[in-house]
Amino acid sequence: MTVTHPKGFKAAGVAAGLKASGNPDVALVINEGPDYTAAGVFTGNRVKAAPVLWSQQVLKGGVIRAVVLNSGGANACTGSQGFRDTHSTAEHTAAVLRTTKKLMIGPGDIAVCSTGLIGELLPMDKLLPGVNAAVKALAADGGERAAEAIMTTDTVAKNAVAQRDGWSVGGIAKGAGMLAPALATMLVVITTDASADNETLDAALRAATRVTFDRIDADGCMSTNDTVLLLASGASDRQPTLAELTAAVTEVCHDLAQQLIADAEGATKHIAIEVAGAASEADAVQVGRTVAGNNLVKTAFFGNDPNWGRILAAVGTTSAAFEPDRIDVAINGVWVCKNGAAAEDRAKVDLSKRDVRVTINLHEGEMNATIWTTDLSHAYVHENSAYSS
Amino acid sequence: MTVTHPKGFKAAGVAAGLKASGNPDVALVINEGPDYTAAGVFTGNRVKAAPVLWSQQVLKGGVIRAVVLNSGGANACTGSQGFRDTHSTAEHTAAVLRTTKKLMIGPGDIAVCSTGLIGELLPMDKLLPGVNAAVKALAADGGERAAEAIMTTDTVAKNAVAQRDGWSVGGIAKGAGMLAPALATMLVVITTDASADNETLDAALRAATRVTFDRIDADGCMSTNDTVLLLASGASDRQPTLAELTAAVTEVCHDLAQQLIADAEGATKHIAIEVAGAASEADAVQVGRTVAGNNLVKTAFFGNDPNWGRILAAVGTTSAAFEPDRIDVAINGVWVCKNGAAAEDRAKVDLSKRDVRVTINLHEGEMNATIWTTDLSHAYVHENSAYSS
Repeated sequence: MTVTHPKGFKAAGVAAGLKASGNPDVALVINEGPDYTAAGVFTGNRVKAAPVLWSQQVLKGGVIRAVVLNSGGANACTGSQGFRDTHSTAEHTAAVLRTTKKLMIGPGDIAVCSTGLIGELLPMDKLLPGVNAAVKALAADGGERAAEAIMTTDTVAKNAVAQRDGWSVGGIAKGAGMLAPALATMLVVITTDASADNETLDAALRAATRVTFDRIDADGCMSTNDTVLLLASGASDRQPTLAELTAAVTEVCHDLAQQLIADAEGATKHIAIEVAGAASEADAVQVGRTVAGNNLVKTAFFGNDPNWGRILAAVGTTSAAFEPDRIDVAINGVWVCKNGAAAEDRAKVDLSKRDVRVTINLHEGEMNATIWTTDLSHAYVHENSAYSS
Repeated sequence: MTVTHPKGFKAAGVAAGLKASGNPDVALVINEGPDYTAAGVFTGNRVKAAPVLWSQQVLKGGVIRAVVLNSGGANACTGSQGFRDTHSTAEHTAAVLRTTKKLMIGPGDIAVCSTGLIGELLPMDKLLPGVNAAVKALAADGGERAAEAIMTTDTVAKNAVAQRDGWSVGGIAKGAGMLAPALATMLVVITTDASADNETLDAALRAATRVTFDRIDADGCMSTNDTVLLLASGASDRQPTLAELTAAVTEVCHDLAQQLIADAEGATKHIAIEVAGAASEADAVQVGRTVAGNNLVKTAFFGNDPNWGRILAAVGTTSAAFEPDRIDVAINGVWVCKNGAAAEDRAKVDLSKRDVRVTINLHEGEMNATIWTTDLSHAYVHENSAYSS
């Protein structure tokens, strides 16, 4: 139920000593073909880590045959040495695959992903031996070990699969903080044994991330390293339509995105902000993101407080079409606000459970969108103040 | 050293029972002239509290002769009844001033400000008797009591004065959370005994708030009730130039804004984000606000962690002109980042004191701006999750 579920892929996860804990920290996913088509989406942050700049170049070549990933260091804000280190990692991986597996893969077909502390050079003396070990450990059932090796503050590894008749899509993901609009601090590798050209893969991946990873927000902070890669092996010999492929990739992305939010740093609530009655989808997304990102809304939910006034105050900072005296807000199905003012008794709202559903009806149109977020808890503050991460 | 320092003003603060604590909660400031010119700036939030809508109307008339303020309830998201309550408050104040003080002031010349929980109607049965008491208590030295009566989660009352030769500017303020770009959750009343027409007052006030209240951000949350009023009595018979008036009003606004940040909910740090070398002032402000609003930056400072990588990641989300490999960052004078990568040893940064200074040089031009903010602490989460406020 992971990235090695689709045919044509092998993976590995090993401990190379990048993490002080001794936990696995180097992962490798390889595509054994017969196809090597690929697509990718990357962080919107203008401060991009070296591996993001590298992998964007790789993708321009239209082929990804392997992905090397490491936790224990983001290799972001590391200057030209950081980029040389990423380049060396790809070259070293290509060399080891050639000498030990007789796989002829150019370094320019190897994507690199890193996650961890920003601003420090990677310990290449540990990473490169880790690549050797990962190549040795490559296995047709290695996906879950790869998922473990990319964890940072994640408490559980994230794996997902969408099974279709004769073909499938699989994925792994990491990400627990810095989850924000336009991707999260996350590394995601998605595989499929379907056969599809690069344009089809790109269209399917963009459609999927737009309504999944782009709609989660844990703390409003956009990472330097976000990467989502989709690799197709064609090993199933099936060629789904774009719609079929999009649906399967979206299923995997949605599953992984929900796992990310469920495991977000310090979260005690898993909150869906449903915006309905918007004049446009963009309005619905803007309102949802703004409410999801509001610290006063987030602390209120941590305190089990159905504080709809803070929700309205957040909506008021958007440029979406709405009239303040026409907005309705429900929390877990109780319409605490109608026409912009108090309605049902807020005491009726049960916030004792982890899942919370906020519904905001703008009464301006027919469009809607849901953004998923978390509360802002003591544990979030603790986790992000106690450690450099 | 408060709003009654300039000649021509009286003020009062009384306890009317709006606050469960029994602390003062109704304030009144009156301008005895001979001039009654005024200016005001209000929240940019599109969900505006009833008193904001009312006071904006009052200001259109060009005259403010009195300001009634209450804590213990924001009168925001309270529908048409909320607006009627604000209107009644102004009418009642006018009637009491007429009957007990022989002051002939129309309700349309009385501004109203409210602060407290959003979404609940004000207890008019307590507020109106509070107005009676406040009128009785009006005194030429009542400014500090007025400052106390508008406190919510503030731990200290905020007063300020700028003394000039023969004239002065005084002010009071409240605000401890919901402090964000384009004003904060704050009510501010500024007085001067200078003589100035409405246009001059408006120009001075806008110039002052643009570089003071608009440049503080405690938690990125914009309030429904923000109001800054400037009232001129002309009682000094002095007529400063626009530049002189702007300088004095800016001095008072800066003083009050720094008091707001110093007293922000749960803050353990008082952080100045200085952005230099920007291509435009707008770029500098955008970068400063974005860094100031980033939860990962804020939690890092709570943890005394000079995590410059998070600062760069925040800068990267802006649209300001910059090249990632040319940014320098200093924390308390230590240049931990040069050209977008690690430079001086971060261990040299001393974060043991409350005041923190972050300097970001974009190396794109000559413009600069400073944004003041706070850290994100356990106490902030506690204060905003434990109580509906």
